[in-house]
Amino acid sequence: MRDQKEKLDERTYQMDFDMLKLALLNDEMDKFREEFLELHPYDQATFFKELDEEIRAKVYHYLSPEEMASLFENLEIEEDEYRDVLAEMTPDYAADMLSNMYADDAVDVLNELDKDQVASYLTIMDDEAAQEIKDLLHYEEYTAGSIMTTEFIAISKNQTVRSAMTILRNEAPRAETIYYIYVVDEDRCLAGVISLRDLIVSDDDTFISDIMNDRVVSVSVSEDQEEVAKKIRDYNFLAVPVVDFQDHLLGIITVDDIVDVMDEEASDDYSKLAGVSDMDTIDRSPMSNARKRLPWLIILLFLGMMTASLIGKFEETLNKVAILATFIPLIAGMAGNTGTQALAVAVRGIATGDLQKESKLKLIIREAGTGFITGTTCGILVMFIVFFWQHDFFLGLLVGVSIFSTLIVATLAGSFIPLLMHRFNIDPAVASGPFITTINDIISILIYFGMATMFMNYLSP
Amino acid sequence: MRDQKEKLDERTYQMDFDMLKLALLNDEMDKFREEFLELHPYDQATFFKELDEEIRAKVYHYLSPEEMASLFENLEIEEDEYRDVLAEMTPDYAADMLSNMYADDAVDVLNELDKDQVASYLTIMDDEAAQEIKDLLHYEEYTAGSIMTTEFIAISKNQTVRSAMTILRNEAPRAETIYYIYVVDEDRCLAGVISLRDLIVSDDDTFISDIMNDRVVSVSVSEDQEEVAKKIRDYNFLAVPVVDFQDHLLGIITVDDIVDVMDEEASDDYSKLAGVSDMDTIDRSPMSNARKRLPWLIILLFLGMMTASLIGKFEETLNKVAILATFIPLIAGMAGNTGTQALAVAVRGIATGDLQKESKLKLIIREAGTGFITGTTCGILVMFIVFFWQHDFFLGLLVGVSIFSTLIVATLAGSFIPLLMHRFNIDPAVASGPFITTINDIISILIYFGMATMFMNYLSP
Repeated sequence: MRDQKEKLDERTYQMDFDMLKLALLNDEMDKFREEFLELHPYDQATFFKELDEEIRAKVYHYLSPEEMASLFENLEIEEDEYRDVLAEMTPDYAADMLSNMYADDAVDVLNELDKDQVASYLTIMDDEAAQEIKDLLHYEEYTAGSIMTTEFIAISKNQTVRSAMTILRNEAPRAETIYYIYVVDEDRCLAGVISLRDLIVSDDDTFISDIMNDRVVSVSVSEDQEEVAKKIRDYNFLAVPVVDFQDHLLGIITVDDIVDVMDEEASDDYSKLAGVSDMDTIDRSPMSNARKRLPWLIILLFLGMMTASLIGKFEETLNKVAILATFIPLIAGMAGNTGTQALAVAVRGIATGDLQKESKLKLIIREAGTGFITGTTCGILVMFIVFFWQHDFFLGLLVGVSIFSTLIVATLAGSFIPLLMHRFNIDPAVASGPFITTINDIISILIYFGMATMFMNYLSP
Repeated sequence: MRDQKEKLDERTYQMDFDMLKLALLNDEMDKFREEFLELHPYDQATFFKELDEEIRAKVYHYLSPEEMASLFENLEIEEDEYRDVLAEMTPDYAADMLSNMYADDAVDVLNELDKDQVASYLTIMDDEAAQEIKDLLHYEEYTAGSIMTTEFIAISKNQTVRSAMTILRNEAPRAETIYYIYVVDEDRCLAGVISLRDLIVSDDDTFISDIMNDRVVSVSVSEDQEEVAKKIRDYNFLAVPVVDFQDHLLGIITVDDIVDVMDEEASDDYSKLAGVSDMDTIDRSPMSNARKRLPWLIILLFLGMMTASLIGKFEETLNKVAILATFIPLIAGMAGNTGTQALAVAVRGIATGDLQKESKLKLIIREAGTGFITGTTCGILVMFIVFFWQHDFFLGLLVGVSIFSTLIVATLAGSFIPLLMHRFNIDPAVASGPFITTINDIISILIYFGMATMFMNYLSP
């Protein structure tokens, strides 16, 4: 729902953008800089994305590498586009810009490039920035280390509020956040934390050790980024310190990075439930789209062939009572749906940590109960419908009982399989919807045709 | 992956908790308070949740309503449990606690109670807090208004940095964030924003108007909470101001609330894809579990019945060529899977806003292309498999061509339906996986049996 205000906001933006473009076209550098640097870096990036290569060259000319850095931190483009944009700049400009970015953002960009390119940028860069970035490049993907930044403010506990504020004012331009200040001992081990909020309401001569909080919640550098997100969410932090196993302070992770992580993880779980391997970006071509979907489709095709050969085994039964075929999609569909429901609850429960608090056995028992209730309801319903529709009591009974048992088994499978995978340290979200659906297809057809074959004498041909 | 540090952290927590419990049991109020008030409110809430009612009564006795308020803000319990916990307190204590909570958190709690209860608490509460809460209770769910808080810091632009810092120090204990200070004009319209970061690096005598940013990004009070989340994410804000259509500053929304919103929305989209109506909380009973899943299952049961009656129409074909039944689950399954993939991409694209940037027509054309590629690949593959397995060229051709056309149509349906719903302002996530699956079941069976009936003469019985 877009209201008046939103429409107005948008029109203002468009006018600003038009003016900026005109300034670029007319080579009015001063006018461009004046207007452009007023914009929030995210808006700068949005404007920049709309330009074509030729005009971008002017932007690199008009802006310093430092000014470009804050735009680049907010640039959201396809992973492989970073290379192209960097190639538009001179190597010196690009390296200078990268060293002016927050280290974690620079690492994100460099991770998209070839090793050779990374090495050559690091060589031109100033040594300090290059070292910081090199250190961060080592950490494994999806760990706290891979998303932390090294631009934090640390002080010693013997300082007073006054001296802490002086440090803070000096370091403010470079630190990613100045709202939490971390206190370290002589070995650079994390000893406490103090917020700027506490700092500014305290007397200037107070010692930091008297007002700091020495029960600091921190994360380990090897911890999964999802766990980090959980901590920041639960504690409502703006940042969390990252330490090694000896409690040395290595970096911090800020809440804005966590917001991105959460988006990523949610997309990831979602796409796996749908059986698409990667949905981070909307693709520009049908070919790359197809490449992401085909792996699943082909696996499922072979699984589907198994289902087909399974039904083939019951050809004799089918030949005698062709009407049986009518209910195959219904029964298989119900099994697939109920399995996906159970799967989703289990996967989400594991992801949010809600499930850790109670025993797996309890979940399985509860799911069995759920399957029993849904099975009974749907089974009885189906029995009546089939009976009134086909006027065949035994057929109704057969379909009803099949639905009943299928729903129980499928619900159990949907919750048991992700739990089992979690147990063996496999991401349970990999057991995607289509996979569970196909497993449950097979189970349901076995139940349905198994019973039909057993009680064939009761069925009218 | 849990490492050494995490295990150690956990053990420390358990020891703290045990000690606190002991202090409660031995009626050692001072010891309890000393230790307890050292904990982060989230840990206080975690500890509190583990206690039974009797011991909780002591906690209410030992802690002031104000101290209890910060615990309560961090308490994450089932929605219907809030009522029970509040009932354990005296009405005066509860009302006093509620008025000490941040208004947005108090509103969240009150929204779970009956109207009578809310009214009675509001009557006992001090007038100012009651008025703030009453104002917030009016806003529609899922809008910016419903999640904003009124505890922000606003100053006028004629002030100096020095006087602004004085206001800040005074208001710090009550404001939800002191890191952004909003500047308003004489009509309380939003005129600018300044961060505490800018404030502390500026000279004391500088006028606010000289250093404030007058291009404030704000949200409208009626804006959807998902839009608010998008803005905070894109701009990396710690908070965003909420205004009415005349730009009056009404409140702020902080990033920690947005983190919760994102979690909620992600769960919501995920559960809809799986066909579960609400997955916010893990349920304690199979019955409430079943209640959430049955609505979808029953709708799908009726849709499945339609599929069944559709196949029934082809009974004659089936009677002649029973082998046709074998491939029903394969074809229907492939249609369902590919439709879910296309649906997921479209829903996620709409949710993240990536899709707004390009035309719907382009998406449809791209999806058609994708369907063509996946259809051709899977179709040819299936044709060969069926041919070598059943030694029946025409059967192979029939199944292959069915898969080919089904995949194209199903991919289109999967992307077209959510776009259509979005167009008519229906949340496209409602077109859940099971729904698309069933639609595509029907389409695929029509194609398959339609062709089989047309070319029956070529098939061996």
